[in-house]
Amino acid sequence: MDFNTSLFNDLQSRKECLQNEMQKSGVDACILTTGVNVFYVAGSIYNGYFYLPAEGEAFHFLKRTTEAVLENAIFIRKPEQIVEELEKRGLPLPKKVLLEVDTLSFTECSRLISSLQVTETVNASVLLRQLRSVKSEFEISQVRECARKHVEVYKQIPHLYKKGMTDLELQFEIEHLMRKHGSLGIFRSYGANMDIYMGSLLVGENAESPSPFDFALGGKGGNPILPLGACGEAIKQGDAIMVDMAGNYGAWMTDMTRVFSVGKLSDLAYKAHEVSREIHEIIKQNTKQGTACADLYNTAMDLVKKNDLEAYFMGTKLQAKFVGHGVGLEINEPPVLTPRSKEVFISNTVFALEPKFVIPNVGAVGVENTYLVHDDSIENLTVLEESIIDLEK
Amino acid sequence: MDFNTSLFNDLQSRKECLQNEMQKSGVDACILTTGVNVFYVAGSIYNGYFYLPAEGEAFHFLKRTTEAVLENAIFIRKPEQIVEELEKRGLPLPKKVLLEVDTLSFTECSRLISSLQVTETVNASVLLRQLRSVKSEFEISQVRECARKHVEVYKQIPHLYKKGMTDLELQFEIEHLMRKHGSLGIFRSYGANMDIYMGSLLVGENAESPSPFDFALGGKGGNPILPLGACGEAIKQGDAIMVDMAGNYGAWMTDMTRVFSVGKLSDLAYKAHEVSREIHEIIKQNTKQGTACADLYNTAMDLVKKNDLEAYFMGTKLQAKFVGHGVGLEINEPPVLTPRSKEVFISNTVFALEPKFVIPNVGAVGVENTYLVHDDSIENLTVLEESIIDLEK
Repeated sequence: MDFNTSLFNDLQSRKECLQNEMQKSGVDACILTTGVNVFYVAGSIYNGYFYLPAEGEAFHFLKRTTEAVLENAIFIRKPEQIVEELEKRGLPLPKKVLLEVDTLSFTECSRLISSLQVTETVNASVLLRQLRSVKSEFEISQVRECARKHVEVYKQIPHLYKKGMTDLELQFEIEHLMRKHGSLGIFRSYGANMDIYMGSLLVGENAESPSPFDFALGGKGGNPILPLGACGEAIKQGDAIMVDMAGNYGAWMTDMTRVFSVGKLSDLAYKAHEVSREIHEIIKQNTKQGTACADLYNTAMDLVKKNDLEAYFMGTKLQAKFVGHGVGLEINEPPVLTPRSKEVFISNTVFALEPKFVIPNVGAVGVENTYLVHDDSIENLTVLEESIIDLEK
Repeated sequence: MDFNTSLFNDLQSRKECLQNEMQKSGVDACILTTGVNVFYVAGSIYNGYFYLPAEGEAFHFLKRTTEAVLENAIFIRKPEQIVEELEKRGLPLPKKVLLEVDTLSFTECSRLISSLQVTETVNASVLLRQLRSVKSEFEISQVRECARKHVEVYKQIPHLYKKGMTDLELQFEIEHLMRKHGSLGIFRSYGANMDIYMGSLLVGENAESPSPFDFALGGKGGNPILPLGACGEAIKQGDAIMVDMAGNYGAWMTDMTRVFSVGKLSDLAYKAHEVSREIHEIIKQNTKQGTACADLYNTAMDLVKKNDLEAYFMGTKLQAKFVGHGVGLEINEPPVLTPRSKEVFISNTVFALEPKFVIPNVGAVGVENTYLVHDDSIENLTVLEESIIDLEK
């Protein structure tokens, strides 16, 4: 099937899924306006509102012209006109409405609620993230293509290193290579505390610095306005270099971490890295459709404790309380692999598993792969050498 | 004065300014939580809430540890605890509160309103953007430093071009050079419809494609998930190359556009470019503290009409209705230079002026500079050759 047919079929089934959910919970209409969700349901990003009633066809209320071909496109200047346009067509005003309350601003959301006289809102941010977390065959092919490029770039990292470089200088070379392999640059994430640029490269003791942002690890960054990741210090003998750069080679993303070293690291660093690999191995043998997401965190934690590595797991000064997350149009989708997650894996979910350790004076170690959930197994999409590669060899 | 003393003094005066405004409008407290605003008032980004009463000291309610040194830092897990912490200290709960209603999500803002039992909200998003638009001496020094690097990078662009390149390939080389000169990568903008990556490079007829995003010009982009800017087509003879890449070399930014060509462009393109330069010249002679922002748009439009260039001004299929904007911690700050702006320039405001034209089959032309408003003049901070440079020469 070609790209356009696949996309068309996906748009149809996404619409049906959404309407199913709406009918189940007595919702009258869904209004989406954030870029990622509009892209998901309309096939392209536009400036306006996607309006879907519980039954029947969708409308695209556009505030700006677009080159996309859209059925039922209606131009408006302001959201208040949605009411007139619905009335003109003899369509009822919705009472109970799915709105992106977790992402729309208070002002914009309040304006939609009052202009449409909405009496009850339902959280479209949560529902859309949940629907998006289970991928279609077409989406999986897009994820695989992204993973292929992600791996291709990572393979070349040892050639980019030059003695005496700073962490930022190495990151710039990786970014440049990523762009040449089709990286879109923009690295989409969900939530307000997710400022990042093309991913994270953590070297040596900078890995211990906590960051205000909601990523697995921190790093102090190079400027107070962007306190995350590489900080501009020279890479030195005995440093671990954790590369967690974006897999943003298309709309659907992948997540992947590998570790490099300059010379030999401490024994503790190698031990922790091997425990991370062991966690991957055991989880790979025991996860499939139906597995509880909390099991993955608990499996990881059991191994961490057995190896006395709790003080280093997912950070030192600040420890993240998750070991992985869904991946898709945004880098952080559901499910989140926390100890108290109530979620269960569904086939065709794509997730990243990232058991990491921060070793004082050495840096961050551990492996991250992106997996696809099947009925009876999980499949690693980011297959590449996992041991720590010495850049001086 | 050293960096830290300057920053400390600025934090003090920003706090006083904010409290002045609060007292004037009878506001009891201000709560800020978005990155840029927290950075502005606290000097560093943290995950939490900056709480400032109309009189007295600020509190930093932190949800995550930070390495920044902050007086009155209080750790909380959730916003509801702000109430307990205030009560513990015998402080009254605020009734009328400045909240970032235009940027906080509906969910988060509603949660703050209900947990604090706020009876009236005032728009902190608008007030902070207004306060931020007038710069201190320290901020101006930061803008100047950014402008210096912006210019340095642009000077080298002719050396990056190779015959047969695509627009994206040229952009990758510029991005790489920008990073090596200290570009932070992240390009902060205000509003939901501002997806961009390191700036925009528009070549040939791609400049005509409208984009859903709120930038001066469009471009179809390389992927439907990012419909803006360069699209991957080869640069060919007779193309204009408009470079509007980010001046993001520090927290305070600059904005700047220059045009290059491959061989000779059409006469119309050169004519339009000269009109853009003439608009800059006339505006430079007539703008100072007190000038109405609308005058700049109207001056530009008069010259555009006099030269019969209306069909090309600020786009063809989609025409932007502004000719410039403030610049600072975000690339799009107030004032916006529109025909109906009610704003008047204040000394120490920094703004970008970008009269641009899109010439069918040729590309975009025009100059953009960042200016600083003085009492009796404006000063161009991005001084660099403005004529169209032929890359084949």
